Amino acid sequence: MKMNILMIAPISGLISILSAIYLYYYVKKHEVGTPRMKEISEAIKEGANAYLKRQDITLAVFVLIMAVILGVVFGHYRGILFDYHMVLAYIFGSFCTTIAAYFGMNAAVRANVRTANAARKGLNKAFSVGFYGGAIMGLSIVGMALLGISILYYIYASVPEQLESTILGFSFGASALALFAKAGGGIYTKTADISADLVGKVELGIPEDDPRNPAVIADNVGDNVGDVAGMGADLTDSYIAGMVATMIIGATIGVTYVILPMLIKAAGIFASVLGMFFTRVGKRGNPGSSLNRGTYATCIIFAILIFLIIHSLGIGDKGLGIFFATIAGLIAGMVIGITTDYFTSIDRGPAKKTAEASKTGAAINILSGFSYGIISIVPPMIGIIIATLASWYIAAFYGITPIYGVAIAAVGMLATLGMVISADAYGPIVDNAKGIAEQAGLGKKVIRIADRLDAAGNTSKAISKGFAIGAAALQVLALFAAYAVLVKIEVFNLMDPKVIAGIFIGAIMPPLLSALLILGVGKNAFRMVEEVRRQFKEIPGLREGKAKPNYARCVDMATKGALKELILPCILAIVAPLAVGFILGIQALGGFLGGSIITGIVFALFMANSGGLWDNAKKYIEAGAFGGKGSDAHKAAVIGDTVGDPFKDTAGPSLNTMITVMALVASVFAPLITMYALFG
Amino acid sequence: MKMNILMIAPISGLISILSAIYLYYYVKKHEVGTPRMKEISEAIKEGANAYLKRQDITLAVFVLIMAVILGVVFGHYRGILFDYHMVLAYIFGSFCTTIAAYFGMNAAVRANVRTANAARKGLNKAFSVGFYGGAIMGLSIVGMALLGISILYYIYASVPEQLESTILGFSFGASALALFAKAGGGIYTKTADISADLVGKVELGIPEDDPRNPAVIADNVGDNVGDVAGMGADLTDSYIAGMVATMIIGATIGVTYVILPMLIKAAGIFASVLGMFFTRVGKRGNPGSSLNRGTYATCIIFAILIFLIIHSLGIGDKGLGIFFATIAGLIAGMVIGITTDYFTSIDRGPAKKTAEASKTGAAINILSGFSYGIISIVPPMIGIIIATLASWYIAAFYGITPIYGVAIAAVGMLATLGMVISADAYGPIVDNAKGIAEQAGLGKKVIRIADRLDAAGNTSKAISKGFAIGAAALQVLALFAAYAVLVKIEVFNLMDPKVIAGIFIGAIMPPLLSALLILGVGKNAFRMVEEVRRQFKEIPGLREGKAKPNYARCVDMATKGALKELILPCILAIVAPLAVGFILGIQALGGFLGGSIITGIVFALFMANSGGLWDNAKKYIEAGAFGGKGSDAHKAAVIGDTVGDPFKDTAGPSLNTMITVMALVASVFAPLITMYALFG
Repeated sequence: MKMNILMIAPISGLISILSAIYLYYYVKKHEVGTPRMKEISEAIKEGANAYLKRQDITLAVFVLIMAVILGVVFGHYRGILFDYHMVLAYIFGSFCTTIAAYFGMNAAVRANVRTANAARKGLNKAFSVGFYGGAIMGLSIVGMALLGISILYYIYASVPEQLESTILGFSFGASALALFAKAGGGIYTKTADISADLVGKVELGIPEDDPRNPAVIADNVGDNVGDVAGMGADLTDSYIAGMVATMIIGATIGVTYVILPMLIKAAGIFASVLGMFFTRVGKRGNPGSSLNRGTYATCIIFAILIFLIIHSLGIGDKGLGIFFATIAGLIAGMVIGITTDYFTSIDRGPAKKTAEASKTGAAINILSGFSYGIISIVPPMIGIIIATLASWYIAAFYGITPIYGVAIAAVGMLATLGMVISADAYGPIVDNAKGIAEQAGLGKKVIRIADRLDAAGNTSKAISKGFAIGAAALQVLALFAAYAVLVKIEVFNLMDPKVIAGIFIGAIMPPLLSALLILGVGKNAFRMVEEVRRQFKEIPGLREGKAKPNYARCVDMATKGALKELILPCILAIVAPLAVGFILGIQALGGFLGGSIITGIVFALFMANSGGLWDNAKKYIEAGAFGGKGSDAHKAAVIGDTVGDPFKDTAGPSLNTMITVMALVASVFAPLITMYALFG
Repeated sequence: MKMNILMIAPISGLISILSAIYLYYYVKKHEVGTPRMKEISEAIKEGANAYLKRQDITLAVFVLIMAVILGVVFGHYRGILFDYHMVLAYIFGSFCTTIAAYFGMNAAVRANVRTANAARKGLNKAFSVGFYGGAIMGLSIVGMALLGISILYYIYASVPEQLESTILGFSFGASALALFAKAGGGIYTKTADISADLVGKVELGIPEDDPRNPAVIADNVGDNVGDVAGMGADLTDSYIAGMVATMIIGATIGVTYVILPMLIKAAGIFASVLGMFFTRVGKRGNPGSSLNRGTYATCIIFAILIFLIIHSLGIGDKGLGIFFATIAGLIAGMVIGITTDYFTSIDRGPAKKTAEASKTGAAINILSGFSYGIISIVPPMIGIIIATLASWYIAAFYGITPIYGVAIAAVGMLATLGMVISADAYGPIVDNAKGIAEQAGLGKKVIRIADRLDAAGNTSKAISKGFAIGAAALQVLALFAAYAVLVKIEVFNLMDPKVIAGIFIGAIMPPLLSALLILGVGKNAFRMVEEVRRQFKEIPGLREGKAKPNYARCVDMATKGALKELILPCILAIVAPLAVGFILGIQALGGFLGGSIITGIVFALFMANSGGLWDNAKKYIEAGAFGGKGSDAHKAAVIGDTVGDPFKDTAGPSLNTMITVMALVASVFAPLITMYALFG
């Protein structure tokens, strides 16, 4: 019976992948447009693929080295030559997610130009192409993830210890991709963005997306590699790690609780696919409300499905506990999203006050955005605390291991990830479409439609962002609990000196990794600004629009630089937990994870919110306030916006992946650390 | 016997106060100088006294309200009408430190003009006046603190529970002053500094300390109320709280361990007074190395004295443990100071790279200073971790309660506070002297001497800063442990949901309080900039130097604004721990303190270091690099420096006081929370 119902998991994974393939052909059958559009689109596609290829080669080398280490070390531990099972699972995890991200991004770079072309005929068609273009990433990546985990479950279900180590290996492999895609893509996209702006907008005064700017194609590529592929990989990392952590905690209760996370994810996939039907825009419809309709429909269908699934498991009252914990998570996620949105959106107090502060110059604008960004982390933090306490006590009330309730709430929040990523990837696709329309000179009407499509993306983002924030926090708590299960420890005492030492070291990690990523963007942009300036100086006629810039060179520089700046933070994220574990022992490593979670959440939220506020303050001024475009206030706000760029698009969103990777490293190596720690 | 040796404590307190009074007359007997100097000096003195008066009135109201609450609430708890003992101790603590700070600052505003006048005759005399002017603050404040605690000990030694609550009350009273003086003074000084710079240097291009600038006196006053009085109060707060926490932990071991912290402080005072004899500058001496000589001499005398004192207590091997834990703390403090200095000083990598980043504009300069500021917290954090582990395991090795070892290391690090504050207060006094020389037109030679005196202050600061950082961290750990002793709990489990909720709430506090203080500076500066602009516009002849600006109005605005902006963060620091405690219980409150310590240390270090880096990057450019003064790089660096001002001088240094206050609130109210918590 349980094996039968579990069939839902791989089946839903397959359905998800097949839907993605179907949508890919749906998008592809649309027209590309004018020859100029085709040319631009090809350049973006080539740039994106060039980046992805080089990233994936680096990743492959990294994964192979790691695989050899894992195989030998765990082989030795298990008394065999090489631990094939774990290594294959690790490579499999990395492979599944890489393929899905590759496919999704390839769809996005096809959807952008087709969205631009469809916009020439009207809003509705353009919306469909943009949204389904994003859905391809969403559906393929969750489909591959769930299918992969289900396959491992079918193979290893009968050998619990091996199941544990293989699903951990799978998740660790997926995280390797996420780390590269998010941090590397984040450095890439902001390098290109800042360089294009600093030389184009600030120094030469030419508009955004102007084809004369040598960095413009790199900037468009950045939207795809950073915001589509990077963001997709990052959320998938949480998706898988949360599921794996819950399965490990569930194993201490019973087999039903091991398969439950997979079933909830399956329900989420069905709900996402069905929910997409609700996003169709009617003749006089509005794309913003139709995205919202899709999100709400998905949530409702999801709630019904999990109720039915949990009911069919026949675990009585405990089923109710699971159900309510999941629903509590969903509600908390929505509240987090809505309150966060209130504090950072363009027409509310903080953004307006930051805009006003620009009147006294850049310094006060920066201090203001920094401060309000911190203040606006209070509502989501309270949301996270309530979600944690609610899911904990609901589970306890129904007699379930309480931390399992927290873990399952995280699983629930990210179950509809197919829909979340679809709506998220829609943003950069539409943004690219606008850039293409601008560069190909499609006229003001088309650009206005692209603007409306863009605005629609922002309204629906609030709720999905809330899910992502809430789920990330609960998921790392679940990973922490999974680590405790693996090392068989129930108490990490805040008054134990090793735990204290671990907490302090862990607490430095998120700010330190953020600083390294931001410096990476700074250094990379420094080099690229020189290159853009050089092209304007050395290519005759470029400024007048008579000669073509060398786009490829900028793309290439951004790519190489991003991968170079990626190395140190990635190594640190893997080596630091190992060093703490093997030197100070499992208690210290527990403290380390705790410390990294605390500052990780604080810094991730603060950087995202401050970045958003500076961006919105600038937009508010551009809309005409305090002197509008070109005023001194505007110049000050542009400086703030540039400071915020790597905050909100590089460092902030990478932190979640970094924390997850550190927690996975701890869990994967837990058995070895238990045995070999120096001062364990 | 023990009572006899304890006599050292009040005696050393008295000696300290008497030395301060002697130095006061020594400084006062020097000449004030020209009538113009007298006039400026009077204006600064009046402004500083006006600020302090208004601050102390606000403080008095606050202390009285708090005293009534404490008296009634604890009276009710103890079954009496009003708890006079605790309330009187609370008022006494606030009174002792207020008087000392008032006296110290009054000495500073007399020393500054006399230093300027002495500089007309040469370096050596000027150094003496400046240094002894600072020493008055240092000696009077530690003297009053130790004398106060000793008196309470003599009165209550026979009633342990009442001793505990009265010394906590005393410390809480001292913290009330520290909170107001540090946060309020910090807002004041940066309001004046930023406003003077934004209008004077940036908009009108007139030099720093120019008498035409209406904000110039407010700026000079700021040095005194923020850097002299605020800093003194802040460190004293740590000095007392660390001693009290150690006494509470010591009470669980035995009476010797209760009096030991007082004896160590007494040794520190003797060492400080003796050490000051070593700071005399010879005919061809150099003030920098003589400050260093004083610091080293103090440390060596201190080490010898505590060895003798501990030996005389006759606690055998355990005495060795105490001695080594203290020495470990001292060494760790020195290492922290030296490494931190390396990472933030003007002629090293980070500052130079931040300066270079200014070439690409203000945004990259800010990103660079932000990132390197974070990276440079790694060495002090490692120093703190090593100090914690070393003092813990040394104590454990000698059979002492390990956390007592950590607490005593903190006591040791701050024992020589008399010397530390003296060297620290020397900085703003010399800075003021330079300002007075500038405004009174004393000529280049005198200003050059003032510059040399200023530079000397910076070299000696490294070590004292290391002590302050290390001691602050260990001291809050000791306070946390004291809280645990008071609520009789030995385990705060990182996997307990209430502890997790508490940690999350506690972790938001330091960034939130920083944000509120920075916003306070921003808002206040915004108002004052308008006022300065107005004066230049409306007072005819001001710009040409023919009319006098209205200095008093600026002083008044800065004062009112600072006290207004202070209210919300102060209330939050007191209400938040109470809310967490009374709603979620003692476990959650323990988590709250833990969370606030973690992000508190991270934010305090990062803000101080980033601020220092931006400042040094600007100075590096001003020294001629990357185009020097007036270049685009310089303009960008000035923006970074302005961002850094409230980081390093308002928010960063206030955090330590804020954390201490929260921990004291928790400890003071611990018995009530244990009884009345809602979900305890």
